Amino acid sequence: MSARAGVLITGTEVLSGIIADRNGPWLSERLREIGVDAAQIVIVGDRRSDMLAALRFMAAEGLDVIVTSGGLGPTADDLTAEIVGQFCRREMVLDTALEARIGEILAPMLKRWPGLDPEAIRHSNRKQAVIPQGATVIDPVGTAPGLVVTPARGDGPTVVVLPGPPRELHPMWAAALLTEAFRAATAGATTYRTRILRLFGIPESAIADTLRAASEAGIDLDSLEVTTCLRRGEIEIATRYEPAVEHVYDAFADFVRRRHADSLFSEDGSTIDEQVAALLGGRTIAVAESCTGGLMAARLTDRPGSSAYFKGGLVVYSNDAKVALAGIDPDLIERHGAVSTEVAEALADGAIERLDATIGVGITGIAGPGGATAGKPVGLVCFSVHERGGEGITRSVNLPGGRVDVRDRATVVAMHLLRRLLLGSRSPEPARGERRNEKSRCGSGASPE
Amino acid sequence: MSARAGVLITGTEVLSGIIADRNGPWLSERLREIGVDAAQIVIVGDRRSDMLAALRFMAAEGLDVIVTSGGLGPTADDLTAEIVGQFCRREMVLDTALEARIGEILAPMLKRWPGLDPEAIRHSNRKQAVIPQGATVIDPVGTAPGLVVTPARGDGPTVVVLPGPPRELHPMWAAALLTEAFRAATAGATTYRTRILRLFGIPESAIADTLRAASEAGIDLDSLEVTTCLRRGEIEIATRYEPAVEHVYDAFADFVRRRHADSLFSEDGSTIDEQVAALLGGRTIAVAESCTGGLMAARLTDRPGSSAYFKGGLVVYSNDAKVALAGIDPDLIERHGAVSTEVAEALADGAIERLDATIGVGITGIAGPGGATAGKPVGLVCFSVHERGGEGITRSVNLPGGRVDVRDRATVVAMHLLRRLLLGSRSPEPARGERRNEKSRCGSGASPE
Repeated sequence: MSARAGVLITGTEVLSGIIADRNGPWLSERLREIGVDAAQIVIVGDRRSDMLAALRFMAAEGLDVIVTSGGLGPTADDLTAEIVGQFCRREMVLDTALEARIGEILAPMLKRWPGLDPEAIRHSNRKQAVIPQGATVIDPVGTAPGLVVTPARGDGPTVVVLPGPPRELHPMWAAALLTEAFRAATAGATTYRTRILRLFGIPESAIADTLRAASEAGIDLDSLEVTTCLRRGEIEIATRYEPAVEHVYDAFADFVRRRHADSLFSEDGSTIDEQVAALLGGRTIAVAESCTGGLMAARLTDRPGSSAYFKGGLVVYSNDAKVALAGIDPDLIERHGAVSTEVAEALADGAIERLDATIGVGITGIAGPGGATAGKPVGLVCFSVHERGGEGITRSVNLPGGRVDVRDRATVVAMHLLRRLLLGSRSPEPARGERRNEKSRCGSGASPE
Repeated sequence: MSARAGVLITGTEVLSGIIADRNGPWLSERLREIGVDAAQIVIVGDRRSDMLAALRFMAAEGLDVIVTSGGLGPTADDLTAEIVGQFCRREMVLDTALEARIGEILAPMLKRWPGLDPEAIRHSNRKQAVIPQGATVIDPVGTAPGLVVTPARGDGPTVVVLPGPPRELHPMWAAALLTEAFRAATAGATTYRTRILRLFGIPESAIADTLRAASEAGIDLDSLEVTTCLRRGEIEIATRYEPAVEHVYDAFADFVRRRHADSLFSEDGSTIDEQVAALLGGRTIAVAESCTGGLMAARLTDRPGSSAYFKGGLVVYSNDAKVALAGIDPDLIERHGAVSTEVAEALADGAIERLDATIGVGITGIAGPGGATAGKPVGLVCFSVHERGGEGITRSVNLPGGRVDVRDRATVVAMHLLRRLLLGSRSPEPARGERRNEKSRCGSGASPE
C-alpha cells in the first residue's frame, strides 16, 4: 500500500482566480516522484472554517501526509500555521530563536526600503515565529518559515506547511523531504515510474481508439495508469506504473509507436522546444512574425542559453513594418494579401537576410477577433520555415479558438514545422496527400476532452 | 444566508500538473458574480473513489451547488457523468435524442479526418449520451453535453456538470445559468460587489501596515472581505462587500489613496495594459528588446485592436542584431556594454526610427542564468521609453527571481514606465529622490506572501 497525500492551497486570491495556482500541480508531481500518490488538491480561501474542513476531509480519507502552501505571510488573513496547529491539536508558541532568525533576514530588507517603519514591519513578521509546539522548522527562503507538524496524539496525517511563492516553496520542499518527521510519515512509499509520449497532428479520439485496440491486443492496460490529454494542440500520453510492469509499458509504447509513427514525436519526455534546440546543431535561427506579435521569438528565447542560436526577430505587425524591416516587396502584399503563403515565405527569407541566420521562420495570420476577409477567416495562419539556400516548408493552416489560442497555437505549429525541417535530411518530406491531411488536421475543432 | 458552492475539477492530467487548471478559478469568479460563494476548489484524478469522496465532502459542508469540470470525453477514464449519477442517486440512461445530436455534431468532423474509423468514433462518443435519469441536458459546444443534476431524494447539492476545455466550458456555463434546476438551487443568493485597487512600487508588508492603520482609524474592515496579493510585481487589493457597506469601502479606498498616492495606479479594476493602450491616444509605439526576447512586443499585441497603435518590434538578441536592426553604434556597446542605460536609450531611439513610431521602448538586460559579469548581475535590466523628439525616461533596475521571472517582470516595469511617460504632461516627473527610491524598490526581494 503506497503512501497517499493531499495538497491544500490556501488564499482567497487563488480561490477567486486573481492569481493562478501553480503550486498544487507542482507539489503533486514532486510527491509522485517520491512514490507518494496525491489524492487531491484542495484550494480554499483564507477562511478558518473552510481550511479546517479541508484538513479534516483529507484526514477522513486516511491520507498519510498533507502539504499546505500559502497563508504564512505577515497579514492578518494569513492563518495557516495557526489552523494547522489546531488541526494537529498543538498549542501555538513563540519560537524566540526563529524570531531572531526572521529579524536577521529582515534587517537588509529594511535598509533597502528606507521609507518603512521598522517597528511595524517587525510586528507584522513576529507573527511568523509563532508555531505549533513541537513542530520541525524549515528555514525561511523569504521571511516565512516552513513547518512539519505531526499529530499530537499520534493519529492522523503529518502536515508539511510551506509558503506560497514558488521561489520559496521549491527549495523549502527539498528541505522538508529531509526532515525526520516527513520521512517517518512516508516510510514504505512505492516508487513509480512516469513516462510520457507526445504526439502532434491527430485528434484525441484516435488515441482513445488506440487504447481500446491495445487492450484488445492483450496489453494489460489495467496494470498501468494511462492518462491522455490534449495540450496546446499536442497530445500527451502520461503513464505511471510500478517498475515490475515495465514490460507492459514497453509493449504499450511499442503499440502506440506502430500505429502513430507519423505523429509520435517524443518518447523520452522531451518537449518540442528541447528537440528543436538540440536539432539546430550549430545552425542559427531568426524570425519574422506578424500575428504572433513576438511570441515566436519569446518562445525561442525561453530556454537558457538560447543566445547561442537565436539571432533575433522582427515583429512586423503593420504592412509598413513588413516592407521596411523584413524587406517584403509591397507588390507581393498587394497581389496576395499580407496573410498569404507567399508573404510567409518572403518573411522567412527576410529574417535570414536581415539577421544573417541559417534558418528563417515567417508567420503571418489573422489572430482575430477582427481582420477576417472573404476567404481568409480568423484563425488562418501562414507559415514558412526555410534553411538559407536549402530546403523549406510552407503551410497554410486554420487554427481553432480565440485570439489567445490562435497566437499560442501558431507557435506550436511553427515549432513542429521547424522540427520537420531540421530532421529533413534524415526523414522524407511528406507526400502530397499527407500534406493536405496535415492542413485539415490543424484546422479541426476536435474536442480536447 | 448566501448560497455556497464548490468546484470540482477532475482529471489526472490536471492533478499531476501536466496541464494547469484554469477552470477552477474561472468558475469561482463566475459564481461570485452571481452572488454564490465558492467555498473551495477540489482537484482530483480520474479515480472513482476520489471523485465520490470529494462530492460527499462538499455535500457534508452543506453546499448548495457543485460545479464539475472535466471527465466528459470519450475515453474510459472519463467518469464524471456516471459518478455524479451515483452521487445524486440517479440511474444512468441512454438519451437517444442526445445520441442523435452528438451524431450530427460528429458528422462533419468525420469528413475532415478521413483516416479514422467512423464506427470506432461513434462508439467512443455514444458513451457521452448516457446520462443520469431526469438530468437537464446542456447542448454541447464540442461533442460533450453538459448536465444539471438534482438530488433524486431532494436533499443535497445540485450538480452542474461541464466539460474541461475552456472553449466549451464558458458558453455552456452561461447556458447552465438559465436552467430551471440551477435557478432553484441558487435562489436567494446575495449579490456582492468586488472592487480592485492596484499598486506598483511598494512591498506587500506596507499594505499590511496600511490595513492595520485603517482599522485603527476606525474603518470597519471586518465588514469587508479584503484580500491582498503580490502578482507579477504589482499589489492587488481585492475587496468584496455587500452593497449596504459601500460607504465603508469608500472610506477604505480613500485611506489607501491618501497613503499610497504615488503607487496606486488603478482604482477601477483596469490593468496597466489597458491604461497604456488608452493613454496612447493616437500615438504609435515600437519596441527594440533584448533580454525579453519578444515578450514586450507580445504583451503590447495581446489586446485585440492593438494593430491600431503597435507598429512593430525588433528582437535584438545578439549584438550584431542590435547594430544591424536597431542601428546601435558598435562603439556604444563597446564603451558601455550591451546591458547599459546608454544602449537602452539607443534601442528606444532605434525602434522609433526604424519603425516610424511616436513612442519607442528599449529593453536590455541579463535574464540569466548565465551572462552575469562583475557589476552586472543576473536580473539587471535597463529600460528606456521615449517620445519622438520629446520626453523620455531611462531606468536601470535589479529584478529578483529566475530567468522566467526576470523576463516577465521586465515587461511589467516597461509598462509602468510607459504609463508614466504617457501621463507626463499631466503628472510631474518624479523628484531625484523618488527616482532612486523607485530603483531600489524594483530590486527588492520582498516576499510575495
